[in-house]
Amino acid sequence: MSETHLLLQAPLQAINVGLQSFAASLAAQDIPVTHVDWQPPRVPRLHRTGAGVDIEAANAEAVRRIVQGRPVLVGMGLAREVIPGFHDRLVLHAGPPIGWERMCGPQRGAVMGALVYEGLARDEQEAAALAAGGAVEFAPCHHYHAVGPMAGVISPSMPVFVMKNETFGNLAYATQNEGLGRVLRYGAFGPDVYQRLHWMADVLYPTLQAAIASLDGGIDLRALLAQALHMGDEGHNRNRAGTSLLLRAVTPAIMRTCPDRERAAAVFGFIEQNDHFFLNLSMAAGKAMVEPAEGIPGATILTVMARNGTDFGIRMAGEPQRWFTAPAGAVQGLYFPGYTAADANPDIGDSTVTETAGYGGFAMAAAPAIARFVGGTAQDALEATLEMYEICFAEHEQLSIPALDFRGTPVGIDVRKVLETGILPRLNTGIAHREPGIGMVGAGVLRAPEECFQAAFEAIQAW
Amino acid sequence: MSETHLLLQAPLQAINVGLQSFAASLAAQDIPVTHVDWQPPRVPRLHRTGAGVDIEAANAEAVRRIVQGRPVLVGMGLAREVIPGFHDRLVLHAGPPIGWERMCGPQRGAVMGALVYEGLARDEQEAAALAAGGAVEFAPCHHYHAVGPMAGVISPSMPVFVMKNETFGNLAYATQNEGLGRVLRYGAFGPDVYQRLHWMADVLYPTLQAAIASLDGGIDLRALLAQALHMGDEGHNRNRAGTSLLLRAVTPAIMRTCPDRERAAAVFGFIEQNDHFFLNLSMAAGKAMVEPAEGIPGATILTVMARNGTDFGIRMAGEPQRWFTAPAGAVQGLYFPGYTAADANPDIGDSTVTETAGYGGFAMAAAPAIARFVGGTAQDALEATLEMYEICFAEHEQLSIPALDFRGTPVGIDVRKVLETGILPRLNTGIAHREPGIGMVGAGVLRAPEECFQAAFEAIQAW
Repeated sequence: MSETHLLLQAPLQAINVGLQSFAASLAAQDIPVTHVDWQPPRVPRLHRTGAGVDIEAANAEAVRRIVQGRPVLVGMGLAREVIPGFHDRLVLHAGPPIGWERMCGPQRGAVMGALVYEGLARDEQEAAALAAGGAVEFAPCHHYHAVGPMAGVISPSMPVFVMKNETFGNLAYATQNEGLGRVLRYGAFGPDVYQRLHWMADVLYPTLQAAIASLDGGIDLRALLAQALHMGDEGHNRNRAGTSLLLRAVTPAIMRTCPDRERAAAVFGFIEQNDHFFLNLSMAAGKAMVEPAEGIPGATILTVMARNGTDFGIRMAGEPQRWFTAPAGAVQGLYFPGYTAADANPDIGDSTVTETAGYGGFAMAAAPAIARFVGGTAQDALEATLEMYEICFAEHEQLSIPALDFRGTPVGIDVRKVLETGILPRLNTGIAHREPGIGMVGAGVLRAPEECFQAAFEAIQAW
Repeated sequence: MSETHLLLQAPLQAINVGLQSFAASLAAQDIPVTHVDWQPPRVPRLHRTGAGVDIEAANAEAVRRIVQGRPVLVGMGLAREVIPGFHDRLVLHAGPPIGWERMCGPQRGAVMGALVYEGLARDEQEAAALAAGGAVEFAPCHHYHAVGPMAGVISPSMPVFVMKNETFGNLAYATQNEGLGRVLRYGAFGPDVYQRLHWMADVLYPTLQAAIASLDGGIDLRALLAQALHMGDEGHNRNRAGTSLLLRAVTPAIMRTCPDRERAAAVFGFIEQNDHFFLNLSMAAGKAMVEPAEGIPGATILTVMARNGTDFGIRMAGEPQRWFTAPAGAVQGLYFPGYTAADANPDIGDSTVTETAGYGGFAMAAAPAIARFVGGTAQDALEATLEMYEICFAEHEQLSIPALDFRGTPVGIDVRKVLETGILPRLNTGIAHREPGIGMVGAGVLRAPEECFQAAFEAIQAW
């Protein structure tokens, strides 16, 4: 979220949970703040599981795998062709598992739009009936090595990026970013939305696919991400540098492989006009880095943190198939003119894979523009990152923050430390309208809900 | 200077003048530091000239003009065709006026190379004889609304960017940046240097010229610069963001106007491979912004700060044609492997136009990577900028620094304040080998010499 994309709407209100300085800073700017002085349940450090597994050693291995991952953009393909197990009636969505009946407005809107886009329904009403009638299988992106921002819908014929973790060989997937405004991922549907999606599939995708295929060795996303964190991005709400660096990496290949100069210029222009284009790649890179940590017995490090707009869900490296969920939270946000918090859907999207992998909100110190955007200062941005070290197992060896003298980002959220400190992960996010069919209404910050961490901690005690 | 371009050479030595914290930080890292505790001559604030002119009001007008300038890249052309007054035997150079006999090695090397490149001499020896014999007229770039990095040589057939200050209508000029290593501006000559210069004139220039000419309204350099300062650049030694943003702005036009895809890709690749490509544009933008302040009676604000490798020179808005000079200083630098401070030429180049216009070293807080590169911390970078507010008349309204909560950069160096505080301007720079024909050997930081400010202050007292 660039500071140029949103306008401040008065009066702004905020609820501050935890760190006092953020509340003080807001208050100093005459923004009403309710400080919730949450006292965490103090728990003793768990060193071994009931089965005798050394948790520290397990976590060290989990974080080693995350930090040593090297995600490289190696290709593109249609979801049904490249994502293992995809089928023609499968629709993936963000967050933990959910059926149509409990889906929030924007996720329903995105599903309806995707079914019309796929030609499975003639209009959104028919699409809703189809979805409600069980004709579509829903599954989390995370069950298919994929991630999607906001509603996170991936339908069979959507093109996806293929990210390969060169260290461990695993693959991850994400769609192309549509831009801002009325876009499917924020729950919008309609002719303008479908037209853009078709252009992205018919023009953008083949052009990028040919360019990426021509690059020997692909594009090293970890290197781009590391540079972007030195250029004011945090890889989640701010991606201006990442998008710039991606264009630097891919453009000569576009020029050489695209025979149509106007098409090349249109493709470049589409990406250039959307500073969030890099977000989906940043997310797929995060997914590719985190997944090798799954399945280490005794590891209490998060491998998934994701929201479907109804529920917030986490998974741990030591029990990677099990979701621990809690109601999705309200975002402390700023809104586009004409919208208020009353229009906002709760927290939604897989983009918290960035925080899970050690950047995004955890690298807020790299992107003071975001702190300022929500009424904070550069000092608040520093403190936000400093606080996240308290709940992380390690500091990243590949990603670092200039303002902290190039200290590695906090990486590897340890459920034990969250419970011991009472500090909940900080998340940056966009805000979707709560009704289907409308789209983005703002952006902001929040924390993960306490309950799913408590449930995960209880599960650890039973390991 | 990106941190990836230079390797630390041990043992590093540094001389620190003024701000103690920088020395302390170096010392904490076991780098030998000599702290020169220079005590400034305290002078009383001058409010009016002898002729009764209100200096504060004059300076306010000078800085208003600098800050309100809006430099836009509007075109390109050959120096002899677009720079007013150019002729076939004129060679422009960086810094204050100087003849062949006093020119330093790298400036001589660049002149010799330029004469061979122009076809005025068959080889460098003949070129040196020609230059020594008075067959060439030398003049500072600054006398022709131009600026050049390092040796700063502009010869008749070199292509230049044309920067228009849309607020005041004045034009400024700079050549295309050659990249790093063995390049003319660092005093290198030879077939590899000429081959690159010819490619830049025959391929790069016409391609960029056609692209820029096709852009309605040109490219707003102030907007790019403002964004770059939010992305880890300071616009002098670090230009990775500026170069990225320039590519975003110009590439669709290259794609549309260049009929040859391979040529387009080669041009894009040349810029993409050189994070300093933006430097010359940043400099021309600075020159375009500062020049309208020239000729305001009583204004003690610097409009020029430039070095020819032998002398350091400044000029003031209130007496714009007069140079005040002092010996060029030694750079506190890091060196490429195989080189030491003994190889270093003194401070050289017009690139201090960036500090004169309120960024570069004055915006060090925006680019902690540079502070780190010379052994400092992010805190040192903040303090470097904070110190420069002490000698500047104002804070920039268009350029700001995220880490200082988007405070405007210090702009408008006031000779009075330099004398009152004893704080000398901080400069970032590259380092050229002292012998002609070799090239770049390192990069670093230093301060402007005291003597020229004292001379300027004496001149003010006679106004």
